[in-house]
Amino acid sequence: MSLPTRVRIVEVGPRDGLQNEASVSTSDKIELINQLAAAGHSYIESGAFVSPKWVPQMADSAEVFAGIDRQANVTYAALTPNLKGYESAKLANVSEVAIFGAASEAFSQKNINCSIAESLARFEPVMAAAKRDGIKVRGYVSCVVGCPYQGEVAPSEVARVAKALLDMGCYEISLGDTIGVGTPKTVMAMLDAVSAVVPVEKLAVHFHDTYGQALSNIYVALNRGISVIDSAVAGLGGCPYAAGASGNVATEDVVYLLNGLDISHGVDLNALAAAGRFITDKLGKQPSSKVGLALQAKCSTT
Amino acid sequence: MSLPTRVRIVEVGPRDGLQNEASVSTSDKIELINQLAAAGHSYIESGAFVSPKWVPQMADSAEVFAGIDRQANVTYAALTPNLKGYESAKLANVSEVAIFGAASEAFSQKNINCSIAESLARFEPVMAAAKRDGIKVRGYVSCVVGCPYQGEVAPSEVARVAKALLDMGCYEISLGDTIGVGTPKTVMAMLDAVSAVVPVEKLAVHFHDTYGQALSNIYVALNRGISVIDSAVAGLGGCPYAAGASGNVATEDVVYLLNGLDISHGVDLNALAAAGRFITDKLGKQPSSKVGLALQAKCSTT
Repeated sequence: MSLPTRVRIVEVGPRDGLQNEASVSTSDKIELINQLAAAGHSYIESGAFVSPKWVPQMADSAEVFAGIDRQANVTYAALTPNLKGYESAKLANVSEVAIFGAASEAFSQKNINCSIAESLARFEPVMAAAKRDGIKVRGYVSCVVGCPYQGEVAPSEVARVAKALLDMGCYEISLGDTIGVGTPKTVMAMLDAVSAVVPVEKLAVHFHDTYGQALSNIYVALNRGISVIDSAVAGLGGCPYAAGASGNVATEDVVYLLNGLDISHGVDLNALAAAGRFITDKLGKQPSSKVGLALQAKCSTT
Repeated sequence: MSLPTRVRIVEVGPRDGLQNEASVSTSDKIELINQLAAAGHSYIESGAFVSPKWVPQMADSAEVFAGIDRQANVTYAALTPNLKGYESAKLANVSEVAIFGAASEAFSQKNINCSIAESLARFEPVMAAAKRDGIKVRGYVSCVVGCPYQGEVAPSEVARVAKALLDMGCYEISLGDTIGVGTPKTVMAMLDAVSAVVPVEKLAVHFHDTYGQALSNIYVALNRGISVIDSAVAGLGGCPYAAGASGNVATEDVVYLLNGLDISHGVDLNALAAAGRFITDKLGKQPSSKVGLALQAKCSTT
C-alpha cells in the first residue's frame, strides 16, 4: 500500500451540504464560500442550477455566484442537471459544472423517473454545450455501495456508469456513497471494479457519514491510490432517507486524517473549523464534525 | 493484510463512559448493564472501585454489582486502582479487575503525582492479591499516541509500559488513545513497537473518538491482527481535556464496521442501539454514535 503525497479536497458544503439543511441567506452562503477559499480550499462546489421547486435551498445560486469574492486559484463549481441549468450556470460565470448518474436502477427510477441510461442520455446536450464553451464537467455517480430502495449495488454497475460518464467527456468521476452504508470491504470491491475501467487518477470519492464509516473508507481509498476527496465543512447536509442522521463526511475530520498521514492538501484546519462554526451558528446547530467540536472545546492537545 | 474472523468487544460504557457523564441512578446503571448483556455483550466493564471524591460517578459500583442480573457467559469487570479498591471489588464479586499505567511521564505526574514506574509499583499488591484469589487482571495503558501535557508519546515508551504490565501478570493489555489524537500512521507505528514485545493476541485497542479517527484506527489495528476492541455504547464519555468533545468510540459504530467486514462479535446491533437510546435518554442527550442516530431516524436502508 502506498498513499498519495498530495490530495485535492473538493469542498461540497455550500452545495451538497446546504441543499439538505434549513435555508440560509444568500449573504451567509457568500460569506461561507469566501471563508472556505480563505482557508485554502482550491475547489468549492458553490451552488446548483436546479428547479427551485425541487431544491429550494439552491434557488439563489446565481446571486451567490455573483456575490462571491473570486480568487484566481479557486474553482467555483455548480451542479447542472439539464441544459437550462447549464445555461444559467454559464451566465453566472461558474468555473466548472457537474452532472450525475445513479449506479442503482431503482434509485434512478424513484428519484428522476427514468432509467440510468435515459438519465445519462439527457446529459448529452449539457456535455455538448460545455465542450463548445470549454467548460470542464465533473461526473457524480450516486449509490455506489448501496441504495435506499434496492439495497446492494453491484460494483460492476458502478463501473459501468462511471465509464459511461468518462466516455461522455467528464474529466473526473466522483463515486458517491449517498446513504453512507459502505465499509472498507464493500468500498474496496467497488473501487477495484471501477478502477479497472476508469484510470484511478480520474476518480474521486464522496462519502456520507451516515453510519460513521466515511473516514475508514477514505483511508481505504487513499490506499487504493485515489487522491481527490469530496467533503463538506462541518459535516453539513443530512440523509434525506433518515432525518437526524449525519450528512457528508466533515472536511475538518478529513483534514485531520490527512495531516496525520503527512498528506498535503493546502487547507488550514483552524480557519476551516472557524468557517464551520460560522455556518453552523447560522443554522443554529452544532458542527457535525468531531474535530470541529474538539477544536471548539479548545482541546489544545495537538 | 488479513483480518481476524472474530472480535471480542469490551464494552466500557458503564465505566469509562459514565464516569465522564452526568450522574445517573444506580438502577439505571444496572438496567443498562443488563440490556448490554442481553444484546450479546460477553464483557462489560461495569464499574470502578475508586475514591468517590475522585470519581463521584462510580461511588455506587458495589450497589451496581449487587444489582445486575448476572449472566453465566458474561464477564463483569471493574477498575481497581489500589488494594482497597481491589478488596471492595472482590467483595462485590466482580469477574475481573483492571489496572492502568500511563505511557506518558507528564501525564502520570500530573494525574497521579508519581512516575510511571512508581505507579506500576503501587499495583503490585493488587496483582499479588488477585493472583492469590485467582482473579484475572486486565491492564490499561493510557496516552498511547499522545498526551495532553507532553504532546507526542514515543512508541518505545508505550511498548515498555505494556510489557511491564504483561510481566506483572496482566493477561491482556488495552492500548488507550486517551485523547483521541491518533491517526493510522501513528497508530501503526505504536502497534508495531508494542507487538514486538507483547504477543498481539494479548493486545486490545481502546480509542477515543475526539477527532473522529477511532474507526480508521480500529481498522488499522484489525489489519495488524488485533482482535479485542474496547468501545462504549452510544459513544458515552467525553474528553476531560475538552468539554463538549466526543468520548469513547461508539460500540454501535464498531459493530457496523465489523458487520461490514464479516467479522463476528456476538452483539445484536438493534438491541445495542436500544440500550444506547435508553442511557442517553436518561442523560438527556443524543447518542454520540452515528449508527445510533441513523437507526433512531429509522434509516432502514441496510
